[in-house]
Amino acid sequence: MSSPSVTPAPEHSTRTRADHPATTVTVLGLGPMGRALAGAFVDAGLRTTVWNRTAGRDRELLDRGAVGATSAAEAAAASKVTVVCLVNYEAVDAVLRQDEVEAALKGRTVVNLTADTPARARDTAAWAAAHGVRYLDGAIMTPATTIGTPDAVFLNSGPEDLYLELAPVRAALGGTHTHLGEEIGRAAAYDIALLDIFWTAMAGYAHAMAVAGAEGVTARELAPFARGIGAILPPLFEETAVDADAGTYSGEGNPLTSAVSSMSHIVQVSESHGIDAGVMRAAEGMARRAVGLGHGQDGFIRVAEVIGRR
Amino acid sequence: MSSPSVTPAPEHSTRTRADHPATTVTVLGLGPMGRALAGAFVDAGLRTTVWNRTAGRDRELLDRGAVGATSAAEAAAASKVTVVCLVNYEAVDAVLRQDEVEAALKGRTVVNLTADTPARARDTAAWAAAHGVRYLDGAIMTPATTIGTPDAVFLNSGPEDLYLELAPVRAALGGTHTHLGEEIGRAAAYDIALLDIFWTAMAGYAHAMAVAGAEGVTARELAPFARGIGAILPPLFEETAVDADAGTYSGEGNPLTSAVSSMSHIVQVSESHGIDAGVMRAAEGMARRAVGLGHGQDGFIRVAEVIGRR
Repeated sequence: MSSPSVTPAPEHSTRTRADHPATTVTVLGLGPMGRALAGAFVDAGLRTTVWNRTAGRDRELLDRGAVGATSAAEAAAASKVTVVCLVNYEAVDAVLRQDEVEAALKGRTVVNLTADTPARARDTAAWAAAHGVRYLDGAIMTPATTIGTPDAVFLNSGPEDLYLELAPVRAALGGTHTHLGEEIGRAAAYDIALLDIFWTAMAGYAHAMAVAGAEGVTARELAPFARGIGAILPPLFEETAVDADAGTYSGEGNPLTSAVSSMSHIVQVSESHGIDAGVMRAAEGMARRAVGLGHGQDGFIRVAEVIGRR
Repeated sequence: MSSPSVTPAPEHSTRTRADHPATTVTVLGLGPMGRALAGAFVDAGLRTTVWNRTAGRDRELLDRGAVGATSAAEAAAASKVTVVCLVNYEAVDAVLRQDEVEAALKGRTVVNLTADTPARARDTAAWAAAHGVRYLDGAIMTPATTIGTPDAVFLNSGPEDLYLELAPVRAALGGTHTHLGEEIGRAAAYDIALLDIFWTAMAGYAHAMAVAGAEGVTARELAPFARGIGAILPPLFEETAVDADAGTYSGEGNPLTSAVSSMSHIVQVSESHGIDAGVMRAAEGMARRAVGLGHGQDGFIRVAEVIGRR
């Protein structure tokens, strides 16, 4: 299961004006993230062609030197590399799976930075293979404002030679880039898992704010303590990961039974104020299931093994 | 709602041998936390009497110099201050609400560090008032291993004069102590809210591990990235708290609609592997409810206001 080298070494790109001024890039999709990507390419001196289904989104980019296109096919035909950043893969399919676009992309490269599921990434890779399109999948883990800065974090998966070949394109985006492997769904798998952590934690925080509010505690009063709780999470994530891969699940001092007790108090206080406790009820249910299977003295992360059983 | 001074200044106790060697303290409940508290009192040179419902838990403490007691009443009668640390307030009621114990505690002080709900803290305070017992409620936010070290974090609520008077007792415990106010339920309210954040986040992490595992990603492969996600939470908790108290809920670059889209992808991938997605389904439900009420362009923390509506 676990390899000695836990993660591939990330590549830190220092942003410079393109070493390969011949590099041409097209950006399909000009939402906040697509605009940020295209802006970074323009700033790096790449010849950048942009297109968006809804017109008018390219104005500022055109002023800065980007090239407009009247259709996705025309945009795709303009560059060796097409970066796709749309709302989801349904939108990606609607744009890419058209005869003229497929014809324009034949023998060229698509880098799909749209967020979706690993299965959709695999399906898009199959489409690409069937149409002679070279395909790399990716996920952007940081907000649009980080693009072009050292704070940007990109995950990639797909053919390694293609990943290496695209270094000049990545250099324009700044930040940290990690190639997670050749299996095309891997970037989306990491993306989903990391978003799972993020959005669950934010849901917990929003819920805690509501419960605190009902008890007369303001968000700002709670915040310094919430920050303290937040600070203990990252080291705990690392410790329990070792525990989980080793299958040890040590519950010393903090067994699952005690987590269940805390969780039931939270549900009780929440519902005593008429506040929906569905998230905590579901979390408590997972923990109780693990306890019911005989793991009450294990650490909480035993839950991962129990809910992941095939 | 919000006060200029967001939180009371915490008191950092530097642990020394007791300045007031006359201080006597009783600890009722010798689970891991009770034993840690009693051990810290003994180490600080306080005359420490201990009792536990199940016999035998006091052996190591007696070797270290603690005084044993054959009943809770005898233990309560031995000291000016009785610290209670049991599994929950049902256990507290079972121990304290006995005629002999009530008689022994009359005119003395109980500090209840048992974790439970604000309502139970209020109920215990009412019992204390009815029996002439001085009462302070508290919560311990860190594991038993931190007691007596600078890492320990204690929250307290109840009469301020009593809190101040107990400084010598607190000094023995090390760490940081905060008096959150005279309202007796306040420590429990903070405790519940902070545990809500913690356990929800841990549930998200366990779930993410299970989903990653189903996609062939080990916990240790995910961990460095999980750590990265964890690191962005504390500052985000502080920023969004200001947003929440101000009622601004800015969603710039990351509106609720986009959170809902990510959440539905997570549910989809989870369930495609047969992994329970109840936590994320509930979180998505809260977010969709906020979107349905017209807040789709707001930031995620609008959810706190929506679920907290009376």
